[in-house]
Amino acid sequence: MTQPYDMGKQLGDFLRGVLSQAAPGPGGPGSSGWGRRIDVSKLPSLYAPQEVRRFTAPPGGIDNLALSSHDVFWMPDRGEFQVDFDGYFQVARDNPTTREWATADVYVNLTDLRLKGHDDTLGPINVRINSDVVSAGQTFAAGTPEEASKCRIATSVTFEAPDTGVTLFNREPVLLMNDAIESIPPVEDPNGKAFIYRLPLYDRAQPDGPPMAYLTELRYTVGNYLTFDQAEEIRAG
Amino acid sequence: MTQPYDMGKQLGDFLRGVLSQAAPGPGGPGSSGWGRRIDVSKLPSLYAPQEVRRFTAPPGGIDNLALSSHDVFWMPDRGEFQVDFDGYFQVARDNPTTREWATADVYVNLTDLRLKGHDDTLGPINVRINSDVVSAGQTFAAGTPEEASKCRIATSVTFEAPDTGVTLFNREPVLLMNDAIESIPPVEDPNGKAFIYRLPLYDRAQPDGPPMAYLTELRYTVGNYLTFDQAEEIRAG
Repeated sequence: MTQPYDMGKQLGDFLRGVLSQAAPGPGGPGSSGWGRRIDVSKLPSLYAPQEVRRFTAPPGGIDNLALSSHDVFWMPDRGEFQVDFDGYFQVARDNPTTREWATADVYVNLTDLRLKGHDDTLGPINVRINSDVVSAGQTFAAGTPEEASKCRIATSVTFEAPDTGVTLFNREPVLLMNDAIESIPPVEDPNGKAFIYRLPLYDRAQPDGPPMAYLTELRYTVGNYLTFDQAEEIRAG
Repeated sequence: MTQPYDMGKQLGDFLRGVLSQAAPGPGGPGSSGWGRRIDVSKLPSLYAPQEVRRFTAPPGGIDNLALSSHDVFWMPDRGEFQVDFDGYFQVARDNPTTREWATADVYVNLTDLRLKGHDDTLGPINVRINSDVVSAGQTFAAGTPEEASKCRIATSVTFEAPDTGVTLFNREPVLLMNDAIESIPPVEDPNGKAFIYRLPLYDRAQPDGPPMAYLTELRYTVGNYLTFDQAEEIRAG
């Protein structure tokens, strides 16, 4: 039995252990991770310039890429809002399961996302990654050496509209997908869309309240690699 | 300061409190609840016979309904499997936000689901609700008094194939939706489908491994209310 004066520390250490297990993570059916958390510790950070080759399964890395999107929101009492966003996202790609385009699966995690948009009524809107949930995805083996492949990533974000004081978040993934990618990563590719159906967005200040808005449509374009300075400028806000 | 002999109990009580907060639940962006958990304590359980009226927002209740589905699975190394399932699901409907079809939103939780299917290669397959995650959804206000409405429910299940020893689960919702319901609940309605895109299914024994299969298509038919005895027979297995 420990001395009474150790009880607080002991309890604290024990609780930290328990909580670290109970915290959202990739493991198990009750987890709030939307897929596998990949080990990013040995992946190089990749900035412009990079050579991207078609129909090739490159070694793993952390891509820093330009991203833009067109989002449609629906608020039951206020109607529809269409907003264009621009910024970047950072995707950690694990090493491919094989080095052949035809057979390689590549597991990914979204590790950062920052987009800015503006609506005349709502004012500026900032989109950020919600790190409380693992945003996971993959590219799929194409099957043959020179065939387009598919990719998907289940994305957890927050939409902050500072003029309104409201930050919204999604509890179901915004599934970004692309049915025909010809490189990993896809770059300069305007064919991304979100596969969503009236996706509920909740108010971070009242997470147990009813959905405040719904995301009804999202199209996105992955641009090219950013330079380190470009990415830092976006990350600095 | 408590007596030393109370420490174990005190710690236990404290931990239970902490863990009940940390456990998957509806609250907060990091939660593994896919929506609001509704209070089922005051809702009546509803079995056949029930009168279901078109374009009406009935008071809340817990519906016990026949359910069948046609699911398509894809396993990267084994190809496609198409399986028909039959059984029931139980949907807890909160009281509608108004009593008018045109304006009422109705929030729901899936509180039970049991389906049986069979595949010649895989043997019997049992689908069950995964209660670790809140399966939440809603019907949407139709807008006008006699217009079809829409509904969605984000569903967390397990697929158990006992002959193979494998149980799969989804970390992203199987989104059951119906674009044109004319009653709450929809009954005898074959128009349900899942809005999914290569939805990953993970092995419960290796939850951090790669997806073992993907759900690529799912169509479902909501039947009518079951009698209590019919539901009990399904629940008994």
